[in-house]
Amino acid sequence: MTDARLKSWVQSAHQPACEFALQNLPYGIFSDPRNRQPRVGVAIGDVILDLSVLESAGLLAPDGAASPVFAAPDLNAFIALGRPAWRSARARITELLSADNTSLRDDALLRQRALVNMAEATLHLPVEIGGYTDFYSSREHATNVGAMFRDPENPLLPNWLEMPVGYNGRASSVVVSGTPVRRPNGQIKLPDQERAIFGACRKLDIELELGFIIGKGNALGEPIACEQAEDHIFGTVLLNDWSARDLQAWEYVPLGPFNAKTFATTISPWIVTMDALEPFRTRQPDQSPEPLAYLRHAGHHAFDIELEARLRPEGARDETTISRTNFKYMYWTMAQQLAHHTVSGCNTRIGDLMGSGTISGPTPDSYGSLLELTWGGKNPVALRTGATRSFAEDGDELTLTGWCQGDGYRVGFGRCTGKVVAAYPA
Amino acid sequence: MTDARLKSWVQSAHQPACEFALQNLPYGIFSDPRNRQPRVGVAIGDVILDLSVLESAGLLAPDGAASPVFAAPDLNAFIALGRPAWRSARARITELLSADNTSLRDDALLRQRALVNMAEATLHLPVEIGGYTDFYSSREHATNVGAMFRDPENPLLPNWLEMPVGYNGRASSVVVSGTPVRRPNGQIKLPDQERAIFGACRKLDIELELGFIIGKGNALGEPIACEQAEDHIFGTVLLNDWSARDLQAWEYVPLGPFNAKTFATTISPWIVTMDALEPFRTRQPDQSPEPLAYLRHAGHHAFDIELEARLRPEGARDETTISRTNFKYMYWTMAQQLAHHTVSGCNTRIGDLMGSGTISGPTPDSYGSLLELTWGGKNPVALRTGATRSFAEDGDELTLTGWCQGDGYRVGFGRCTGKVVAAYPA
Repeated sequence: MTDARLKSWVQSAHQPACEFALQNLPYGIFSDPRNRQPRVGVAIGDVILDLSVLESAGLLAPDGAASPVFAAPDLNAFIALGRPAWRSARARITELLSADNTSLRDDALLRQRALVNMAEATLHLPVEIGGYTDFYSSREHATNVGAMFRDPENPLLPNWLEMPVGYNGRASSVVVSGTPVRRPNGQIKLPDQERAIFGACRKLDIELELGFIIGKGNALGEPIACEQAEDHIFGTVLLNDWSARDLQAWEYVPLGPFNAKTFATTISPWIVTMDALEPFRTRQPDQSPEPLAYLRHAGHHAFDIELEARLRPEGARDETTISRTNFKYMYWTMAQQLAHHTVSGCNTRIGDLMGSGTISGPTPDSYGSLLELTWGGKNPVALRTGATRSFAEDGDELTLTGWCQGDGYRVGFGRCTGKVVAAYPA
Repeated sequence: MTDARLKSWVQSAHQPACEFALQNLPYGIFSDPRNRQPRVGVAIGDVILDLSVLESAGLLAPDGAASPVFAAPDLNAFIALGRPAWRSARARITELLSADNTSLRDDALLRQRALVNMAEATLHLPVEIGGYTDFYSSREHATNVGAMFRDPENPLLPNWLEMPVGYNGRASSVVVSGTPVRRPNGQIKLPDQERAIFGACRKLDIELELGFIIGKGNALGEPIACEQAEDHIFGTVLLNDWSARDLQAWEYVPLGPFNAKTFATTISPWIVTMDALEPFRTRQPDQSPEPLAYLRHAGHHAFDIELEARLRPEGARDETTISRTNFKYMYWTMAQQLAHHTVSGCNTRIGDLMGSGTISGPTPDSYGSLLELTWGGKNPVALRTGATRSFAEDGDELTLTGWCQGDGYRVGFGRCTGKVVAAYPA
């Protein structure tokens, strides 16, 4: 299925920079002017294949589905069917979209019902997210932050090389790409004032992350072994962990970030499955010291996913790419994160979202946050408009993109975008 | 409705120590051998009033209910009807249970269907909890912990007096009273070893807390004002925030507690409504410095709720009360917690759970955790069996209780219990 020669009769899937080649087939939830009901679709080229139409036409029935799963407003019911269903659905959709398959290609009426122009569609949150956890697994990011805020000579905290440090995030404020992001108000401690002040965040930042979605949960008290952890992952999304740096600095000791992060977390609308990522599996960085036994796994568990962060000021035509990095730099793997998360007995559920933590690469232009790119605001980034930025300003549109580069095709994530709107009147 | 002379024809509601007087009427979800379907009930004396039976018999219809809400397996649909429905249901249930009301009292067949012996019922989680947040709002607790782990001369961190510090907890592992609690495994850093080891928690602790349940959410980006915050609260439960102190000490810098807390949080099954608590409203402690404007509210916002923690070792007949404290000691109020939580624009949803943080009083026998009661294990507590405890051992049953003492009646919470079972084999 990952054959580069694989062709679809959807011509737009073959444009070189198209993120939705036949090798991708990411799942999302969409609605459109003809049908306002959110339902399951797959992205192919510049269209969305409406799986609810195929399902009701009897052309698509995932293994084990006793009742329809694709007319639902989230993917949870489909995901709950398990890996055999994911595999059978992927195989069948690939077949139906293949250049030489006539059943959909040559049925003009069905094709008209089942294909929706992506430009006309509204995309929704793809899953109902019961829990959101965020990790901190880029060594470069942890080192940069530690050097800035603690000790440049000894930037990593002692626990960092022993465990994929993580914390619980706020699931209610996870929003889909395109949702405006309101600048948060909160407490700020200025160095020249004795007491904290209340006001709008002055240091609004992004964190370029990849999130994964739980496809198979675990019961309370029963950990997921590291070697089996990838079996519990359905797929991945881009994730922007918006962060109010000034609120964070004041609130985070001793219980961690709270209001600095809970106002919004943006994810991309398309879930790129583990099956689609499989050809891009690669070796993770060496880990030294060797992790404790419960964090060990043989083989390759990193993924080669190119990532960018872009900024477009209000009214500007062009975006400026402010960071280029890669998911393969992450020190701790998704499997290790999930093994660590559950080793205490913590249960996970289908649809749970796990963020990687900011993905920073080894060079200054590959850092995944404005905090690092501008080194705490000291070196503002230059935009193509001539303006500069230390942190995000009202009207700025921040976008993450990501893709795996195959031989003549791309497995991409689409855009993960949020435009900053002014703070709530205080 | 809070008249001490108010009498019910349910005789057991009038026993002096009965927690479920007619003035209480807490909501829960229960099932029983006759009907395994979880549904809504109200505790009265030693029985449960099955609201689904009253509803289907046409005797109970909360304001605004277009369809049945009491046959549901959680309270979320009822809560979503809003305060007029909560008030009308409470008034009607009070009426039906009043000594002089004959409609249920004298209908033997209906009474038999609508009343279930509490001893025969199984209680379930009362709400579907989308988000769980835990605060840290007892000054005595924060002072004790700060003195033990940081600086006895300066135990409170600078932000503590400015804001109700809180963090996101893990909603998936919130369990109802009676659910066994498996001792977590995790990383422990021993002082005499260079690297962390992996093993079962050696310092398993409780945290005696009160939780509140969101009754009316807020939209993303739109804060809840402190003066209006109590309108958003449906009711309260006892909450045991189980904590693995050794895991916590190693993992919590810089992003806060994670595996040390995510393995289990136990809540009591009955939600005591704000209407039932109203007669026990009292003045909160003085706050100095005066909080920032968004955290100010006129009037009294503390509640006089007596609280106890008890420990019963495996096989012992008797419990030992290890702590006696009161919710009124809390420095930050529930209203201030909710105003702070949402001031960034964070949204809340019906059923969200907010923990108070450990409730410690001013005297050493009123501390809400073993960590404080034993001062880090230095002064083990003596049990009635002759044994001592520094932290919880396998087989120990830990129970929280709480009640408001009225004039001749109690508004109580029932028991919030968890028995410690051995760690998952590592």
